[in-house]
Amino acid sequence: MGNIEIIGLHGLPEFDISHDLPKLIYESSLSSTGGIKSGDVIVVTQKIVSKVEGMVRDLLDVIPTSEASELADKLGKDPRLVQMILEQSSEIVRTDFDRGVLITESIHGFICANAGIDSSNIEGDTKIALLPRDSNASAKKILKDLKNLSGIDSIGVIISDTFGRPWRDGHVNFAIGCAGMSPYIDYKDTIDAVGKVLKVTTIAVADELAAASELVTGKSLNIPVVLIRGCEFKPEGLVEESLLRPKENDLFR
Amino acid sequence: MGNIEIIGLHGLPEFDISHDLPKLIYESSLSSTGGIKSGDVIVVTQKIVSKVEGMVRDLLDVIPTSEASELADKLGKDPRLVQMILEQSSEIVRTDFDRGVLITESIHGFICANAGIDSSNIEGDTKIALLPRDSNASAKKILKDLKNLSGIDSIGVIISDTFGRPWRDGHVNFAIGCAGMSPYIDYKDTIDAVGKVLKVTTIAVADELAAASELVTGKSLNIPVVLIRGCEFKPEGLVEESLLRPKENDLFR
Repeated sequence: MGNIEIIGLHGLPEFDISHDLPKLIYESSLSSTGGIKSGDVIVVTQKIVSKVEGMVRDLLDVIPTSEASELADKLGKDPRLVQMILEQSSEIVRTDFDRGVLITESIHGFICANAGIDSSNIEGDTKIALLPRDSNASAKKILKDLKNLSGIDSIGVIISDTFGRPWRDGHVNFAIGCAGMSPYIDYKDTIDAVGKVLKVTTIAVADELAAASELVTGKSLNIPVVLIRGCEFKPEGLVEESLLRPKENDLFR
Repeated sequence: MGNIEIIGLHGLPEFDISHDLPKLIYESSLSSTGGIKSGDVIVVTQKIVSKVEGMVRDLLDVIPTSEASELADKLGKDPRLVQMILEQSSEIVRTDFDRGVLITESIHGFICANAGIDSSNIEGDTKIALLPRDSNASAKKILKDLKNLSGIDSIGVIISDTFGRPWRDGHVNFAIGCAGMSPYIDYKDTIDAVGKVLKVTTIAVADELAAASELVTGKSLNIPVVLIRGCEFKPEGLVEESLLRPKENDLFR
């Protein structure tokens, strides 16, 4: 009663641009857990979305500018990688030359290391994956196809990626895209256990679901998608909601 | 296979200093899910730990200093609350007078709003709960008793609290204390799906478990503890590991 299950979807391939991701997710949901039920949330790791959307690049094709080369030299990074990071960034937020850390605001608005570019789980020593161009749109497309395939209307889809955080060591998964559900649950104006009206608390439920999904996707290299059953979410509103805090409300830029 | 369950523990009381928290958790685990199994993680919300440890204070007993009163006036907050926040803080990190936001480093090392003090779910309009004095020690005490009661050796215990984050709107649960398990899982030097050695990634698994737990504790006001079954964790090492990033390695202070 009220419990939640995080179910790994099995049998998915090494993805590339030739694959129909929603169809494969749907088929795997059938064999892994009897299909998608109303209220399920599907969390998809960013890397396979990037692969299917053709966001893999080869550093052999990249010619770094002198700006990228100078910065790469200070950071101890590959100049071609730094070139790609700069192309995927709107602003450099912090650098730490001693530790080779480059934190930028990505063109998508995420403040993270290396504009979200990484090279794990990609064939080829010089291959890298960029973030999807628009992860909310990616989630919407997956949602649309999953609804059609399953005939279920109430499904949430989240694209997750791994982030570092200020002040706290270690990485966690957060949501970079979301569809079919609001990324928030709002406890405002609900009554707490002792009858007081709760004043805070807007919970970033999409981030909590992404974090929860990593507990399963991180355990196996072959499970890039999970189905979460039993959680509550609000349907998405008419206005697109973003988990990104507006710059003018941020005290740590 | 490889799935994870987040199981709410039912029938727990409104806690106060008279309650034996580990015993009540153990008894609830029996009725909620047949008891604790090897490898289970128990996530306890901070509020009930604070209550059981006598960390509830009454603002009627607080006399604010002139420093607290001046700051409270600028923030539009109760001067007695600001007094308590300052007493629970080692440093003011950011203030936003327009929005009444006070971010400090708490005496425990957490950078968060109001030094983690809040007043929801506490009887009495002037009552507030401080964070536990040492949440790792709180987790250790709960772990010791749960091991004795259950006869199970491999248990993780996490104390969770709700945090805002820079750059991202909404709150999520993170771990403020941890025992019986390392707060991290390290993917360094493991081989990814295409045979490359993963260079990053230290996952703050305790934070992901805390975030996952909120999906159940947030749904009901009467479920302050969850049991998470099926996750992987490393036993804690001899050295106490903290999720707090050392100040000298932090780019956002």
